[in-house]
Amino acid sequence: MANVAKTVSWSGREQTEDEGEITPLLNGTSNAGDQPHRPCLSPNFFPIGRLRTVDLGEHNQEQETELTTTFTKEIPHNENLLSLKYESLDYDNSENQLFMEEERRINHATFRTVEVTRWVICGMIGIFTGLIACFIDIMVENLAGLKYQVIKDNIDRFTERGGLSFSLLLWVALNSAFVMVGSLLVAYIEPVAAGSGIPQIKCFLNGVKIPHVVRLKTLVIKVFGVILSVSGGLAVGKEGPMIHSGAVVAAGISQGRSTSLKRDFKIFEYFRRDTEKRDFVSAGAAAGVSAAFGAPVGGVLFSLEEGASFWNQLLTWRIFFASMISTFTLNFFLSIYNQKPGDLSNPGLINFGRFDTDENSYKYFELPIFILMGAIGGILGALFNALNHCLTTFRIRYIHRRFLQVIEAMLVTGVTATVAFVMIYYSTDCQPLREEAIDYPLQLFCADGQYNAMASAFFTTPEKSVRRLFHDPPGSFNPQTLGLFTLVYFFLACWTYGLTVSAGVFIPSLLLGAAWGRLVGILLTVVPNGVSWADPGKYALMGAAAQLGGIVRMTLSLTVIMVEATGNVTYGFPIMLVLITAKIVGDYFVEGLYDLHIKLQSVPFLGWEAPVTSHSLTAREVMSVPVVYLRRREKVGIIVDVLSETSSNHNGFPVVENTVDGSQPSRLCGLILRSQLIVLLKHKVFVERENLSLIYRQLKLKDFRDAYPRFPPIQSIHVSQDERECQMDLSEFMNPTPYTVPQEASLPRVFKLFRALGLRHLVVVDSHNRVAGLVTRKDLARYRIGKNGLEELDLAQT
Amino acid sequence: MANVAKTVSWSGREQTEDEGEITPLLNGTSNAGDQPHRPCLSPNFFPIGRLRTVDLGEHNQEQETELTTTFTKEIPHNENLLSLKYESLDYDNSENQLFMEEERRINHATFRTVEVTRWVICGMIGIFTGLIACFIDIMVENLAGLKYQVIKDNIDRFTERGGLSFSLLLWVALNSAFVMVGSLLVAYIEPVAAGSGIPQIKCFLNGVKIPHVVRLKTLVIKVFGVILSVSGGLAVGKEGPMIHSGAVVAAGISQGRSTSLKRDFKIFEYFRRDTEKRDFVSAGAAAGVSAAFGAPVGGVLFSLEEGASFWNQLLTWRIFFASMISTFTLNFFLSIYNQKPGDLSNPGLINFGRFDTDENSYKYFELPIFILMGAIGGILGALFNALNHCLTTFRIRYIHRRFLQVIEAMLVTGVTATVAFVMIYYSTDCQPLREEAIDYPLQLFCADGQYNAMASAFFTTPEKSVRRLFHDPPGSFNPQTLGLFTLVYFFLACWTYGLTVSAGVFIPSLLLGAAWGRLVGILLTVVPNGVSWADPGKYALMGAAAQLGGIVRMTLSLTVIMVEATGNVTYGFPIMLVLITAKIVGDYFVEGLYDLHIKLQSVPFLGWEAPVTSHSLTAREVMSVPVVYLRRREKVGIIVDVLSETSSNHNGFPVVENTVDGSQPSRLCGLILRSQLIVLLKHKVFVERENLSLIYRQLKLKDFRDAYPRFPPIQSIHVSQDERECQMDLSEFMNPTPYTVPQEASLPRVFKLFRALGLRHLVVVDSHNRVAGLVTRKDLARYRIGKNGLEELDLAQT
Repeated sequence: MANVAKTVSWSGREQTEDEGEITPLLNGTSNAGDQPHRPCLSPNFFPIGRLRTVDLGEHNQEQETELTTTFTKEIPHNENLLSLKYESLDYDNSENQLFMEEERRINHATFRTVEVTRWVICGMIGIFTGLIACFIDIMVENLAGLKYQVIKDNIDRFTERGGLSFSLLLWVALNSAFVMVGSLLVAYIEPVAAGSGIPQIKCFLNGVKIPHVVRLKTLVIKVFGVILSVSGGLAVGKEGPMIHSGAVVAAGISQGRSTSLKRDFKIFEYFRRDTEKRDFVSAGAAAGVSAAFGAPVGGVLFSLEEGASFWNQLLTWRIFFASMISTFTLNFFLSIYNQKPGDLSNPGLINFGRFDTDENSYKYFELPIFILMGAIGGILGALFNALNHCLTTFRIRYIHRRFLQVIEAMLVTGVTATVAFVMIYYSTDCQPLREEAIDYPLQLFCADGQYNAMASAFFTTPEKSVRRLFHDPPGSFNPQTLGLFTLVYFFLACWTYGLTVSAGVFIPSLLLGAAWGRLVGILLTVVPNGVSWADPGKYALMGAAAQLGGIVRMTLSLTVIMVEATGNVTYGFPIMLVLITAKIVGDYFVEGLYDLHIKLQSVPFLGWEAPVTSHSLTAREVMSVPVVYLRRREKVGIIVDVLSETSSNHNGFPVVENTVDGSQPSRLCGLILRSQLIVLLKHKVFVERENLSLIYRQLKLKDFRDAYPRFPPIQSIHVSQDERECQMDLSEFMNPTPYTVPQEASLPRVFKLFRALGLRHLVVVDSHNRVAGLVTRKDLARYRIGKNGLEELDLAQT
Repeated sequence: MANVAKTVSWSGREQTEDEGEITPLLNGTSNAGDQPHRPCLSPNFFPIGRLRTVDLGEHNQEQETELTTTFTKEIPHNENLLSLKYESLDYDNSENQLFMEEERRINHATFRTVEVTRWVICGMIGIFTGLIACFIDIMVENLAGLKYQVIKDNIDRFTERGGLSFSLLLWVALNSAFVMVGSLLVAYIEPVAAGSGIPQIKCFLNGVKIPHVVRLKTLVIKVFGVILSVSGGLAVGKEGPMIHSGAVVAAGISQGRSTSLKRDFKIFEYFRRDTEKRDFVSAGAAAGVSAAFGAPVGGVLFSLEEGASFWNQLLTWRIFFASMISTFTLNFFLSIYNQKPGDLSNPGLINFGRFDTDENSYKYFELPIFILMGAIGGILGALFNALNHCLTTFRIRYIHRRFLQVIEAMLVTGVTATVAFVMIYYSTDCQPLREEAIDYPLQLFCADGQYNAMASAFFTTPEKSVRRLFHDPPGSFNPQTLGLFTLVYFFLACWTYGLTVSAGVFIPSLLLGAAWGRLVGILLTVVPNGVSWADPGKYALMGAAAQLGGIVRMTLSLTVIMVEATGNVTYGFPIMLVLITAKIVGDYFVEGLYDLHIKLQSVPFLGWEAPVTSHSLTAREVMSVPVVYLRRREKVGIIVDVLSETSSNHNGFPVVENTVDGSQPSRLCGLILRSQLIVLLKHKVFVERENLSLIYRQLKLKDFRDAYPRFPPIQSIHVSQDERECQMDLSEFMNPTPYTVPQEASLPRVFKLFRALGLRHLVVVDSHNRVAGLVTRKDLARYRIGKNGLEELDLAQT
């Protein structure tokens, strides 16, 4: 450790380097003051032991690159990789002089205005989210209604005179057409709109920036994609995507502008930073849940469970407000649309319908049955997740061309329709038509006045099937029908999740669970003869909870969502039991679906706590070294070179004191972000040697905010050779008080600080307050509990 | 600032000090290495500018002092004071070598055992809390039943032949007897058991250690106190105290021992630290809410809203489990007691009864009415709080003797009974007896087959009155009865809260609100003739929510509690609206009741965020200086003197590096707690000059845990003159990586770190990592937004 790096110039032309003998200069105290410190060291010259030694944490420029349209091609299929392409959000305000000056100007009255504005924004988030939900609902109802009517007429015509294969063709063709359009939109215009978006929002709230995820374009594609895929008869729901939609609405409204539309309304400029944006996105996600399930409290809990690390009462209350407004808006407009204004019976996209509690209340001895159902749900959920995991890996490897994705989506659509048709065709489960109108009763080969029961599960939107399974009187479904339906639908739903269409997995899970739950209920009435308490609807509800819990593994929030969607709290306790069992059983086998997908995309997702056995690691072992740092007063040329160097792609740089003679070790005095440097370069905030001041007074916080969040790349900024010789004084723009940890701090300690405060960069210092390294999200996310104890993931550029 | 402190010896005998010229030595960089640093400086010798400069943050020994029995005498009545007598809990583990060695020994399997143990403990917390609730309920029912039966018989007898004043006397005497015993218990045995305990639990979860608050003795007094005060007919409820009871149960069980009973079960030793204890106390409080209201989700939210700063999914799920078990246990045993096993209709101590939703669902145009009711609730709540605030100030000043407190409680009891009697006596509101039996219908002067309606509100436990107001059919109460009842009960309840009895304010608030809410409902049916939608029960519910919200100002958790207690979610939306309005309106006038009481006790309570206008303050201005610090290898005599010095009463001491020649400034290398030093001294972990090692190997983490939480005072430890000359090596016991902030960090930044991580001591360092000061809870809590912007509270020893 006595080797000393020679002077390395950043111009990239005149490197004179004693290769192979380079020491990580800043590592520890062993290099105390015996060499001239240079601000930047080319990482290329360091021995690459592990990948981590050249890992510089956060990758790439802060502007969103346009790589993501080819997104699916590049997903590493090795689960032990951690991708470097994801950037972090920064929930720690850069408290530089500009920021502090603004904050100090804020008196109590101004603050009140800001606070009221936040409430107004939350109200708007609620209203728009509710309106979007309303739009989706009405569109789906009309499109799907039209489709089913056409097919039903066709089937009715051909049932008598034979030739039902034409009907099948028509069905397949119509569905494929819908899905094709939906899939084309997603695959070619905005791939990030695929799926439910819940994993993406989870990541966002966790602090990972997924490119494009909160853009207006994504929202538009998502909304139309959902309408088309649900209308196209896939085994999907429109509820999950509402959460994503709400989040986009929130991100859009709170920033007061749309970069896609190139409109800046010049409002809400105060909120143009990650901290505020995250809070609003939480509110948006909650509003989405609320509109999807009519569950405002569940929405709040979802946001907190998935995102919040720090619980703030005022924030929670605002989130709740947004949720409330969202469900109310949906309810209000849907009741008008349904021509029952003031009815208020449509709080969410899915409504489980009213369970008549007096009759159906449960008994003690049913609790073990419910627990058993929870276990079944856990096992089935784990199976679902494991299968989908294999499928997704396959997709990542082989189906990464866009047209293949579209074709796969159409294939699944065709198979779904065909399977449904065949099952309806061969079903002999005829039920008498009752008063409550079934929307599209298919008579087929049943006697007059009867309808095909299988069709009532397959030949309608999944939401309606769920409600029918919950509420149709005992005897509406044959056990055989339910069993067959469960089996087939399980594989269909599993195949469907992960297709390149916008769609959610909530409703298929509920439907699946409701089917086998109802089956359990029926079996209970049949096997011990004449049991009165085993209402099939109740068991359908428990099955639905078990299956959904087994797949997504949400906990408190899902309980509340189910209770709110059910409309009464009587079943709260059994639902909790079911969910807790499903989670424990499911977690024994495999993770939740969303977590699996997050892992498959190698996202640096931070859990709630550091891995339990990680106490033996310290910041020294975890941190990225060597770290590129800058001096308080730095040459412009060096800054440009640091930013241009692609291998040194941290987004934050510690700033150290300039020393008079260069012989003293340099102490940490701040932290500056790549984005801030870019704005500084763009505005030419340079200081000539003779002319030390004045110029940079003109730069305002507004300049930084205007550039947020898509900062220009360094390549777009021209710096002349003369300018390169200028100096730049970073004092005013750097964060002078970054959080630091000593090198000896244990990983759990570092993790706790990082996670609780939502940091992006955490500077590791030695006992003399000199920069020793930098901890970023990836350095922490790469430790994971595996089968053999603590595992270390590799980092990959893909 | 060029003055230099001369050498100060801590023996206390040979101080040679240049008085009046002492500089806060460690303040900033101005003292760089130009004087010999001494570890400890007597604060007596520093100029006392503001009180803060000698404030040494946390006061007194860590063991709980026995001062608190005289608690009520000493409460300062100046609201601009912050008491120094409260200590902080430390939610940051001291990661010293012993701790790290233990943690490193924990492999995945051991961790799983620990995790399972946590679940088992939560289950036990739920069971015991449920059992306590069950016990309270049954006792109250029997005692109150007996009392009401005796009085009813007496009244019935005397109604005919005159002489009802005997009945009044009997009533007053019986009630006073109950309350006297309850009040004596509280006043003379455990004053901290007074009231609902919710403010105390709020403080505990916030990180403030209120003496005696989670002791077994407190629990016993609380339980019997509640039974007696409710049976004694005061305007109180038994729900609030359940929260406190649950918290005590949790603290007791999780520690696996009772210091009061001197029993150590030698289990759960791993959990003997503040971090773990806090988590279990959260679960206990949630279990208490759950048992009180049958609201498991509401309980979880209560705990989170009041306590958690860091949301952890696993923890939340455990809290939920405890809540669930608690309400289930209560339900199970109460249904057996009520001889309807399996009925499951008693999830909580109060049950609002089933609202039949189909009939009573609300209409759009009722929402503005509800909002108006919320505003009324906010105003009435603010009035209630303001009156109670004056009353409490009066009590603090004048009623601080125990016998006066008992007499006041009896006086209130007598007045309550008398007022009730007079109102019943003069009431002419006779209602026909219906099928549903009223427990103790008083006929008085009504015709046969009728009963006195005023008596049905006054002559029963408040819980039953609430249910009657919610569910009795329209016409059961006269508007005059309700109006008069509201007026009288308002003042009675306000007078009652704060008496030296164990009792809660939830039920009186609900009753009050239900009364005026029902009145609003009746007026709505009367004024616009023949309105069908204005069901009085619905309006009673909204009034109850409004009034309770206006008084306690809880937000999300209260909404969920109300919804869960109501048993269906239909009224969720209007309840939210009502609560949000009540909070906004109420906050405009005065704070919530609990917050007022916390303030009146000068507790250093930390809000969610730093005051909004505090960006201009930095750590340098906020921190305590000078701070007493120790050297890594320190003389035993100095340590004893530091601990004995009452004016230097911090509970944590920064540890600095020993320097060879004493001329170099000393760098921070750790933090050691007073409690740790005391254990070290007690075990004589000394190092002779010649014999540097070996001895302290024998000290285990267990020794520290056994002493937790009541560490002996320093006075009880004898250190001989020879031992004073020994050295003590703190390296192994200090926390080597305490969190630090630079002096320039803004107050909000310091606050955020402190609050999010639940710290107790935060070391402020200069740019050379030298100790500059120490920030404790009091340094942060003393800044508050007042009428004129940022206010600074004074610190007081009382």
